[in-house]
Amino acid sequence: MVVPPPPRSTIEKLRSRLKETFFPDDPLRQFKGQTLKKKLLLGAQCIFPILNWGPNYSPKLFKSDIVSGLTIASLAIPQGISYAKLANLPPIVGLYSSFVPPLVYAVLGSSRDLAVGPVSIASLVLGSMLMQEVSPNNDPILFLELAFSSTFFAGLFQTSLGFFRLGFIIDFLSKATLIGFMAGAAIIVSLQQLKGLLGITHFTKEMGLVPVLSSVFHNIKEWSWQTILMGFCFLVFLLLARHVTMRKPKLFWVSAGAPLVSVILSTLVVFASKANNHGITVIGKLQEGLNPPSWHMLHFHGSHLGLVMKTGLVTGILSLTEGIAVGRTFAALKDYQVDGNKEMIAIGFMNMVGSSTSCYVTTGSFSRSAVNHNAGAKTAASNIVMSVTVMVTLLFLMPLFQYTPNVVLGAIIVTAVVGLIDIPAAYSIWKIDKFDFVVTLCAFLGVIFISVQQGLAIAVGLSIFKILLQIIRPKTAMLGKLPRTDIYRNLHHYKEAARIPGFLILSIESAVNFANCTYLNERILRWIEEHEAEEDMEKQSSLQFVMLDLSAVSSIDTSGVSLFKDLRKTMEKKGVELVLVNPLGEVLEKLQKADEAGDFMKPDNLYLTVGEAVASLSSTMKGQSSTMYEGT
Amino acid sequence: MVVPPPPRSTIEKLRSRLKETFFPDDPLRQFKGQTLKKKLLLGAQCIFPILNWGPNYSPKLFKSDIVSGLTIASLAIPQGISYAKLANLPPIVGLYSSFVPPLVYAVLGSSRDLAVGPVSIASLVLGSMLMQEVSPNNDPILFLELAFSSTFFAGLFQTSLGFFRLGFIIDFLSKATLIGFMAGAAIIVSLQQLKGLLGITHFTKEMGLVPVLSSVFHNIKEWSWQTILMGFCFLVFLLLARHVTMRKPKLFWVSAGAPLVSVILSTLVVFASKANNHGITVIGKLQEGLNPPSWHMLHFHGSHLGLVMKTGLVTGILSLTEGIAVGRTFAALKDYQVDGNKEMIAIGFMNMVGSSTSCYVTTGSFSRSAVNHNAGAKTAASNIVMSVTVMVTLLFLMPLFQYTPNVVLGAIIVTAVVGLIDIPAAYSIWKIDKFDFVVTLCAFLGVIFISVQQGLAIAVGLSIFKILLQIIRPKTAMLGKLPRTDIYRNLHHYKEAARIPGFLILSIESAVNFANCTYLNERILRWIEEHEAEEDMEKQSSLQFVMLDLSAVSSIDTSGVSLFKDLRKTMEKKGVELVLVNPLGEVLEKLQKADEAGDFMKPDNLYLTVGEAVASLSSTMKGQSSTMYEGT
Repeated sequence: MVVPPPPRSTIEKLRSRLKETFFPDDPLRQFKGQTLKKKLLLGAQCIFPILNWGPNYSPKLFKSDIVSGLTIASLAIPQGISYAKLANLPPIVGLYSSFVPPLVYAVLGSSRDLAVGPVSIASLVLGSMLMQEVSPNNDPILFLELAFSSTFFAGLFQTSLGFFRLGFIIDFLSKATLIGFMAGAAIIVSLQQLKGLLGITHFTKEMGLVPVLSSVFHNIKEWSWQTILMGFCFLVFLLLARHVTMRKPKLFWVSAGAPLVSVILSTLVVFASKANNHGITVIGKLQEGLNPPSWHMLHFHGSHLGLVMKTGLVTGILSLTEGIAVGRTFAALKDYQVDGNKEMIAIGFMNMVGSSTSCYVTTGSFSRSAVNHNAGAKTAASNIVMSVTVMVTLLFLMPLFQYTPNVVLGAIIVTAVVGLIDIPAAYSIWKIDKFDFVVTLCAFLGVIFISVQQGLAIAVGLSIFKILLQIIRPKTAMLGKLPRTDIYRNLHHYKEAARIPGFLILSIESAVNFANCTYLNERILRWIEEHEAEEDMEKQSSLQFVMLDLSAVSSIDTSGVSLFKDLRKTMEKKGVELVLVNPLGEVLEKLQKADEAGDFMKPDNLYLTVGEAVASLSSTMKGQSSTMYEGT
Repeated sequence: MVVPPPPRSTIEKLRSRLKETFFPDDPLRQFKGQTLKKKLLLGAQCIFPILNWGPNYSPKLFKSDIVSGLTIASLAIPQGISYAKLANLPPIVGLYSSFVPPLVYAVLGSSRDLAVGPVSIASLVLGSMLMQEVSPNNDPILFLELAFSSTFFAGLFQTSLGFFRLGFIIDFLSKATLIGFMAGAAIIVSLQQLKGLLGITHFTKEMGLVPVLSSVFHNIKEWSWQTILMGFCFLVFLLLARHVTMRKPKLFWVSAGAPLVSVILSTLVVFASKANNHGITVIGKLQEGLNPPSWHMLHFHGSHLGLVMKTGLVTGILSLTEGIAVGRTFAALKDYQVDGNKEMIAIGFMNMVGSSTSCYVTTGSFSRSAVNHNAGAKTAASNIVMSVTVMVTLLFLMPLFQYTPNVVLGAIIVTAVVGLIDIPAAYSIWKIDKFDFVVTLCAFLGVIFISVQQGLAIAVGLSIFKILLQIIRPKTAMLGKLPRTDIYRNLHHYKEAARIPGFLILSIESAVNFANCTYLNERILRWIEEHEAEEDMEKQSSLQFVMLDLSAVSSIDTSGVSLFKDLRKTMEKKGVELVLVNPLGEVLEKLQKADEAGDFMKPDNLYLTVGEAVASLSSTMKGQSSTMYEGT
């Protein structure tokens, strides 16, 4: 009954393997059977998704996009300024980064809801990593150069991932890791805002929970009551606005507009009361004008190259993860497809262009994309509207921010990152999978107590270790027959399943390879010993067949093949026969190739189902045990 | 029919998980239900396996052991001297290392066949790694100190692996890796012998194929014909002896005795002809006496600590792998058990003791253990006999080696390592698994062209990458019904299997977790699209049920649970129902916990076998397709 799979050459196998690895989405599917002209058009649409929606763009769509575009602009301007400060960059860089990248994304990106610009986590990580080598206060120009260079490498890395179809690398940031990491990062970010919210001037440069809190409480005399009062008022206002929107998503404009309202109100208050002379620090004079070119500021060699590349790698992965996840979430809601690898190229290209036009790392932001979606965005044109609004601000409105107090920026950041702490999700992880929760916890504690990058690294390492552990110690189960059926299932799970005397039926629930063949050998021998010990006690018929159900063994390597050969030899010495059941195509093929003597392929050693094997083999057994089988 | 597994608390699960991970062999099994006295005796036997065989030791066993002990001693003495030179250590250290460690192993080791002493690969790696920082010619004392220190850390590392039951770490050196690595190392070792075999005095200090060959051919004028002639004669003699033994294993003493005969003959020739004055270099005067203590030479701090620990780690793993593999091979031949973790403690302790008594890294050697086994060794007492023979040599026979020419040591090494090149094994790997062969090839080429450690690291990295790739891109298969049965199997493998109209039956052949849930989502949706496209062409009934056979999904995490939730939502939008078949215990449990709405646990969404599900669901389908099902 068991037949070998149809033969395929090594080249064919390699081709199908490479295709599944790098082109699981079969991106050329739509090109099949089209005319050349159509193919060229499809190709252009593939590279520039704007060609998909641009030609059919209508005034009705534009009406939706202009509303959502203006809404996200009102959020993007204060957030841009705030996040740039979080990255220790001049506030204006945050606005530059909300101007060029959205335009690039509108042309290349395939999501209709992504609102592009600087985000909190990438800003925090960029700032904290660069601070390890360069001080943003003592050497602001170098710091800025390194930030642009990191942005370039982040973009290059993102584009390469997409181009070489290695997008699966971001899958290694599991949901469990991200939830812990983002909660930790939100706390670190909020702690940093204590500087602005309390008006402290001598603040630690470290990021961890302990040094920041100790710095806060060692500088109590620097606390400024005017700042604290103002910060408290605006924080309450912003959190209330956020609460309203969370309760009634239709009132999205409440939380979307609140930051801009806060900025305007606080600026007016400061301007009117001259509070900047009474302990409240303000942003100060900002330069007018559009993004200056910055390609001459990129570092491609020199002593900081290693740092810049590392920072690019980490911020690149983080911002990619956020952008892709946001894109996929809203695509699923509106039932359209977002191609991960294409998005990576779009985001990466946007960052490379950004790095030459005074922008730092940008991506699609969770919070702004949600506002964009709720405000009814229909196409990426909402990003263009936002971009134009930011351009107008850059050209004409910069002097208005001169009196904006830093404290209100802190309040805006805290309100934005509070949403990253997702306690229900963490609870659901705890409920479903304890080990995943350990990963979440390690990411969280690692970020707040050690450092942002190391917390992330620990969590990713743990996640991979968990996968490897499942390979190193695969599960094996003893199967029994369910009464009145021919179905064999795990005896420990299905209590009514019964053993068949003279048979030991084991299922192996993993690929068999070098990392687990020693374990599996020992474990199977232990199953046999335990089985024999129990039989001795129950005075049952002795073991005649050990049956391995290979239905769940998805692949095997040379070490795995040796395992079965060795097991067969050991069994023979004990007078027990080894029977294999339902090896899958690849496994069967390799066993066949390795089996010069033809032992594995003998019809009475190889069956398609356990039931079949038991029925066929028990007829060959000694009369006594055969009758016992009939009795079960 | 599908019932949840019996509930277990988190603690219970953790306990059984930890037990399977660290105590898969259930080492305390034999202690169960014994009296205290018996338990103590068993415990002592466990720590000192000599107590197992010592009390029953008989003159008959001793007769066997003395023959095999003397045989391996005749091999160990010339090999000890040669391998020490390979590690750039004074020749006498090789003899010291054949005296103390075998005694320690005889008390602690559980293999009856392992012949302990220095081995070629560990010697090569130790020498080449230490040479990176210290020159053995310019600073021989420091070099010796670092060698002893590395030996100490190798022993410490080995003991810790065994003690903390982390023995599975050596499983990561797969057979494919080792075959490539050993072949490469054999070539590197042989190339190093060209110095001795050709009589070159100015030889490169590098190890790679290219620098060594270029050094050999740039120094043609240094070649000494006397040396080459002598080396050629002895090499032919040794290889012939090896060939005889390979043909007739009963003549084991031919190849076992040949090295000692070569040493004696060549020494006599040199002594008689005064050839040491005519271009043939000799070992020179060796110190008499037993191992001096060396614990005061160990480095536990200082600038070389990092190198010493790294060298200890690499040589420790390599020698452990060889020792354990040899022990297991011969244990399987004679049908007794070798406990991996206990062996690690024995080998590690032996190296720690060795490092304080002027010995460098030792382990069980492939070649000498084979001779030991063929010579009829019955217990570890043969190691004691060998050790005593080496002691006698150290005390009284050292002056005899003064005229032993270096060229003969080179010939002995080359003959010993030739056996490490296992072309039939490499061919069989090529035949069975092409990717494994790539690993073999990378290890081989990495070792000969880059460096011994990096070749090894590349191969191990590739092996782990292969495992991860199988997780990242798990196989999915479409199942069909085998005619005249209720069995569903892969349509691409079993050509006679037939589809059921209205059903798409997929099996997932891997654990579902964060690393593959994005891929699986896309892949399953593509299966559905392809299925629908084909149905359109064939004008068949449209898809009503997507069935996922989870028999091979051994585990799941929170991301995997989300995958099924998301899939269910996507399916609902398409008007297709998602049906799960045969989730294993852990998977079922987690789906249940995550499923507040009870969607997954509904009886018509969850079946025990595909056949059952198809039978039950097709009765609920529209009459037309139900009749079609009857017709298949």
